[in-house]
Amino acid sequence: MAKKNLIVGQSGGPTAVINSSLYGVVSEGLAHSDEIGEVYGMVNGIEGFLEDRILNFREALPGDKLEYLKHTPGAYLGSCRYKLPESLEDPVYPLLFEKFEKLNIGWFFYIGGNDSMDTVSKLSRYAAMINSPVRVIGEPKTIDNDLVNTDHTPGYGSAAKYVASTVREIVLDASVYEKKSVTIVEIMGRHAGWLTAAGVLARKYEGDNPRYIYLPESDFDTENFLKDIEKALEKDCCVVVCVSEGIHDADGTFICEYDSSVGTDTFGHKMLAGCGKYLENLVRERLGVKARSVELNVSQRCSASLISAADQKEAVFAGRFGVQAALDGITGKMVSFIRRTEADGTVRIECGLEDVNAICNEEKTVPADWIINNGSDVSEKFLQYVLPLVQGRVEVPLGEDGLPVFVYRK
Amino acid sequence: MAKKNLIVGQSGGPTAVINSSLYGVVSEGLAHSDEIGEVYGMVNGIEGFLEDRILNFREALPGDKLEYLKHTPGAYLGSCRYKLPESLEDPVYPLLFEKFEKLNIGWFFYIGGNDSMDTVSKLSRYAAMINSPVRVIGEPKTIDNDLVNTDHTPGYGSAAKYVASTVREIVLDASVYEKKSVTIVEIMGRHAGWLTAAGVLARKYEGDNPRYIYLPESDFDTENFLKDIEKALEKDCCVVVCVSEGIHDADGTFICEYDSSVGTDTFGHKMLAGCGKYLENLVRERLGVKARSVELNVSQRCSASLISAADQKEAVFAGRFGVQAALDGITGKMVSFIRRTEADGTVRIECGLEDVNAICNEEKTVPADWIINNGSDVSEKFLQYVLPLVQGRVEVPLGEDGLPVFVYRK
Repeated sequence: MAKKNLIVGQSGGPTAVINSSLYGVVSEGLAHSDEIGEVYGMVNGIEGFLEDRILNFREALPGDKLEYLKHTPGAYLGSCRYKLPESLEDPVYPLLFEKFEKLNIGWFFYIGGNDSMDTVSKLSRYAAMINSPVRVIGEPKTIDNDLVNTDHTPGYGSAAKYVASTVREIVLDASVYEKKSVTIVEIMGRHAGWLTAAGVLARKYEGDNPRYIYLPESDFDTENFLKDIEKALEKDCCVVVCVSEGIHDADGTFICEYDSSVGTDTFGHKMLAGCGKYLENLVRERLGVKARSVELNVSQRCSASLISAADQKEAVFAGRFGVQAALDGITGKMVSFIRRTEADGTVRIECGLEDVNAICNEEKTVPADWIINNGSDVSEKFLQYVLPLVQGRVEVPLGEDGLPVFVYRK
Repeated sequence: MAKKNLIVGQSGGPTAVINSSLYGVVSEGLAHSDEIGEVYGMVNGIEGFLEDRILNFREALPGDKLEYLKHTPGAYLGSCRYKLPESLEDPVYPLLFEKFEKLNIGWFFYIGGNDSMDTVSKLSRYAAMINSPVRVIGEPKTIDNDLVNTDHTPGYGSAAKYVASTVREIVLDASVYEKKSVTIVEIMGRHAGWLTAAGVLARKYEGDNPRYIYLPESDFDTENFLKDIEKALEKDCCVVVCVSEGIHDADGTFICEYDSSVGTDTFGHKMLAGCGKYLENLVRERLGVKARSVELNVSQRCSASLISAADQKEAVFAGRFGVQAALDGITGKMVSFIRRTEADGTVRIECGLEDVNAICNEEKTVPADWIINNGSDVSEKFLQYVLPLVQGRVEVPLGEDGLPVFVYRK
């Protein structure tokens, strides 16, 4: 019988290392040529797979081209936001498994966040239902760091490093004038403040900027916020604060909703825009000082120049680990990270496997006792948590044009 | 008689290498200890100097701390936007020169853009008027690249590298979904499109994104823009365009003014906000496709992770060159860059000296014949111009927290 083939897809928003996870899966898959035939990629996730859009990695990224995946931002395979039907009786499931059979797929990998783990859950449950031999494994990915049952997720460390470095640069930039000014940095994160909290790394001494950090885990009170800012301006002429895009008041109304029109995405999530802009205008009008807002925007998830070496290494390792597990017959699991702290304080990250059904559609937020000063700062515990995740630099090769060299599908 | 002292200040908006220019001036000043006594810095430019806020570099950045200036963004000395009075009869001039005498200043350096060269012009003319021996030299700085009589300015190359790399990452990020989408990247530049034009470096093949590039040197027609976008969407589902913050219609009305309230800064410049946001809404409403805008914002001028090695080297060299010129008795000049192209095409940048009076309050824009396709793109000539300016990488040291190490005044 012909060797079974492996297929891998990417789903949801990109991160700086989602292609490192892909590299881990593909390189490990190719390394097991005794057991695995071809290594395929789904173009645009499960949605593209349904339209038979696939590629073969041996042809798409031959030789050392594959190595370039490790520092290429964006999702090399393309992504999708496609939610499989809740009912396993839906005709899409037999359709998918017919396609798996036609391609002689033995192993299915899906790299993504909560919504992608929902896909992994459904496919693995359907496989069990029909006694299909296809092994289905989830590879975690999200800059939001909001997956449960894992210490952290690939993509978070690089995004945190980007946020911290950029906030530090913004602090230096904002500090050049003597005029009183307030700078509001708006950071991604709808319900979980992990990424916003990383702004604390930019603080170099007590009382340094960013002066306050507001996460969506706490209710945000605009009057208290204005009092915080006034107090800070008494001491310093330049005040920088970090706010999560998802901050909301005690009634649950997003602060950005006071300013902007909102819609919903295909998963029913509210689409947010502009709490930074809203607070900027509020500060200017109410406190009469120069105010500015900076939305860090998509660079948080696609900056190659601030990839954390630790994050990249872990993403590759999680990819490899998933392939080894699948070859051992494991299915319906997500690769997780477990933190081991040695006696000397050194932190070591190991991979584990967690039931994907317990992960999908759950959200992990920043623990309440890590949020201090009436919701305007994060504690030392958070700092100890995040430090190992942002270590090291990745040297991205430069081309003749002086710019980073990436791989892409044309 | 005691040796004369040197003083240096920074003015206007920061760049990624304004501190490299400072490093060039200070290190060269300290190296000439046979002729130069102390090397002072004005804190917050001429405005802080009037309040006697100065520092001594031997104390502020002893030993190898000085080297850290080369990769530290923001203006280490702090900056100001202070315009000296037009009339040289104003009492501020004798006051300033009394302070120079009290500090035994022999050489005055000011690092900045057009407005700062206005300060250099006035001080050097006043010095000539009263037969003062103080030598006054301007060191160019601006990400806008809009100073006349110089091939380019320190700060532009790094900002261009940041813009090009980030636009490339945004293109990869925007390309992951199959859904039709338009991404508008808003880039700094009020009247000169040099920085926006650098977006062309992100294009990897003909027809690749960024599909269009709109500079403020051309009149912007929103109906033609919508037609351009529609045409691009016929071929590709993901369209990315670069627009300068200063694009305006044929009547001279800034596109952002159709959306936002505007004010003026201390130099009477219009304060701009949001042409990207305006065009995003326009595309969504008129073309019914997913639209997004990204304002690259202050990172364009303060990102340390994408400093161009060529830019940094030139900034340091311009600083050193200025000190050597001042020691030779030169005054009332700005250090300029001259481009020499060898027979084999190699580009070499040399320093020159230009009359500061011919530079201040002038603006250099992108030549009309470098702007093509009815104002929606830039030509190969621009590409050849910008390529040597974005070459090379600067390794910024990382601290124990995994973040770049900068120097700062507390």
